[in-house]
Amino acid sequence: MLDKNTISEDFKTIQGHICKELEMADGKGSFLLDPWDRAEGGGGLTRIMTGGEIIAKGGVAFSAVHGPTPDKILKKLKLEKSDFFATGVSIVIHPLSPMVPIIHMNIRYFEMSNGVYWFGGGIDLTPHYVIPEDAAFFHQQLKALCDGFNADYYPKFKNWADDYFYLPHRKETRGIGGIFFDRLTETSDQSAEKIFQFVKEVGYLFPKVYAHFMKKNATIPYGEAERAWQALRRGRYVEFNLVWDAGTKFGLDTNGRTESILMSMPPQAAWQYNQQPIEGSAEKFTLDHLKKGIDWINFGL
Amino acid sequence: MLDKNTISEDFKTIQGHICKELEMADGKGSFLLDPWDRAEGGGGLTRIMTGGEIIAKGGVAFSAVHGPTPDKILKKLKLEKSDFFATGVSIVIHPLSPMVPIIHMNIRYFEMSNGVYWFGGGIDLTPHYVIPEDAAFFHQQLKALCDGFNADYYPKFKNWADDYFYLPHRKETRGIGGIFFDRLTETSDQSAEKIFQFVKEVGYLFPKVYAHFMKKNATIPYGEAERAWQALRRGRYVEFNLVWDAGTKFGLDTNGRTESILMSMPPQAAWQYNQQPIEGSAEKFTLDHLKKGIDWINFGL
Repeated sequence: MLDKNTISEDFKTIQGHICKELEMADGKGSFLLDPWDRAEGGGGLTRIMTGGEIIAKGGVAFSAVHGPTPDKILKKLKLEKSDFFATGVSIVIHPLSPMVPIIHMNIRYFEMSNGVYWFGGGIDLTPHYVIPEDAAFFHQQLKALCDGFNADYYPKFKNWADDYFYLPHRKETRGIGGIFFDRLTETSDQSAEKIFQFVKEVGYLFPKVYAHFMKKNATIPYGEAERAWQALRRGRYVEFNLVWDAGTKFGLDTNGRTESILMSMPPQAAWQYNQQPIEGSAEKFTLDHLKKGIDWINFGL
Repeated sequence: MLDKNTISEDFKTIQGHICKELEMADGKGSFLLDPWDRAEGGGGLTRIMTGGEIIAKGGVAFSAVHGPTPDKILKKLKLEKSDFFATGVSIVIHPLSPMVPIIHMNIRYFEMSNGVYWFGGGIDLTPHYVIPEDAAFFHQQLKALCDGFNADYYPKFKNWADDYFYLPHRKETRGIGGIFFDRLTETSDQSAEKIFQFVKEVGYLFPKVYAHFMKKNATIPYGEAERAWQALRRGRYVEFNLVWDAGTKFGLDTNGRTESILMSMPPQAAWQYNQQPIEGSAEKFTLDHLKKGIDWINFGL
C-alpha cells in the first residue's frame, strides 16, 4: 500500500533534483523559490528561472493539495462527496534559442477518501525546428524507459501523447509528442508500487534528456528569421495550452493558482495572419511533420 | 420583415466603410483582402492591415454563412434540425503604440429556418493604460448612441460588457468595457427594423470613436517600459480570447475558419511570472481600474 506522503515527498525530491540538474546544464540561471499555500488545504512550491544562458523562461512546480473534492471533479467522475489528495511536479521550459526544443514534463498522483487513486504524467517535446535525429533520440529514451516496465507502455503512451497534444483548429500536433498516460492504477500485471517506480523514473529521465538537447543544440547558430519563427511556434504553444489543454482549463475553471498554471506561457509569442512557410524550408519541413502517428525512432531509416 | 440579404449587404458596406475610415486615420497602412468560401455554404471577406503607421495588426472581417445548423448550436438552444444563416462584421485592432487602446467591435445577425432570429454585437475598449478622460469619452459616445434608441440600452449593455469581457482567473476585466448585447429580437417596444438600425449605427460609430483615439493618442511619447507593459497586456488579451471568449471557443470547436477567428491575436505578446506593477505607477492605476461596475462617464467627478 502506497502512502500519499511518501509520494509527495519523493515528488518534491524530484523537483529539487531537476532544478539542480537544469541549473548545472544552464550554467548561469538559477531557480527562484515561490512557496504558496492553498486556503482549502495544502500548497506548493513553484520554482522559476528567467534569463538563463540557455533557458529563457522555465518553471518547475511542485504541489500537494487536499480538501473536499471540487464539485466539477465529482460530477465528471460521477462520484459521491469525498475528500481528495493530489500531488505532482509540472515543468515547462522555454529556451532562448530557437534551435533548442521547448519541453514539458508532468508526473502526478491523485487519490480520494473512497480509495480511488491513480497516477498520470508524461514528457513531450516541442521543437521549433523538427530535427529527425533529435526526435529519434528523444523517443528512444522514452521507449527504453517504458520497455523496462511493460512492453505495451511505449506504443500506448506514444499514441496517447499524439492524440492529447493536438491542435484540431490547426490540424497540427504541438510538437513531436512523447509519452502521455493517465489513470494508471494497479492491475493483475502492475502493482501500485511498480507504477510509482515508473512515474519516478519519468521524473529522473527528464533532466538527462533535456540537458542533452541544451548541450547539443544551444550552440547551433541562428538569426532573426529563426527568432521570428520561434515566436510564431510559441504562439501555437499558447494556443494549445489555453484552448485545448485539459489541465490548464480545469485549473483556471476551478480557481486554481493562476501564476502556477500559466507558468507554461512563453516569455514572448507572436501571431501573423495566415503565415505560410515557403516550400523546401526548414519551417515547412517542421509544419509537415507536426502530425500524429510518425514513427520517430525509425524515421528515415 | 427584414430580409437577410439586405442585412448582409449592409454589413458588407459597413466593413468597407470602416476599412476606408481606418486607412485614412492611419495614413500609411492599407487593408489586404482575403476572400474565402465555406464548404457547407456561404463565405466571407477577411481584411487585414499590418505595419500601419498607427495600426500594428488589425482585422476587419465580414462573413455570411448558411447551411444546416451545427449540432452544437441545436443542442445548446434545444432546437430541432433546421437551416441557419449568420452574417456579421468582427473587428480587432492592435495599435503600435501602447498609448493607443486596443479595440474590438462586432455586429451580427443570426436566423434559422424555423423563424427564430436575433441580432448581437458590441464595442469594447482595452487600453494598455487606463486614461479616465478617454474612458469617459468612449462611454459617452456609446451612451449617446444607445439613448437614441432606448433608455434601457446603455445601462443594460454596459453591465453586460463588464460581465462578458472578464477574466475570472485574473479577477480583471479585459479593459474598460463598453457595450455588449445578444439575442436582440422584436418586442412590443422595439421592431426588428429598429434593432437593425441600432446595430448598423454601432458599426458606423466604431471608426469615428477609434479614429479619435488614433489621432489623440498616437503622438503621446513612450519608451521601452511602456512597450514591455503593452506586451503583457496583450498577453492578457490572448488569455481572454482563448480561454473565455464564447465566440472564439465556439468557432474553434465547430471547425470555423481558424485564421479569421484568430485574427484577434496581437502581433506579439509576453508573459512574466507573477508580474506586479509598483505602487503609484500608471500600470498599477490601470490594474486597479480593470474592474466591473465603474461609472466611467462620471469617473472622478
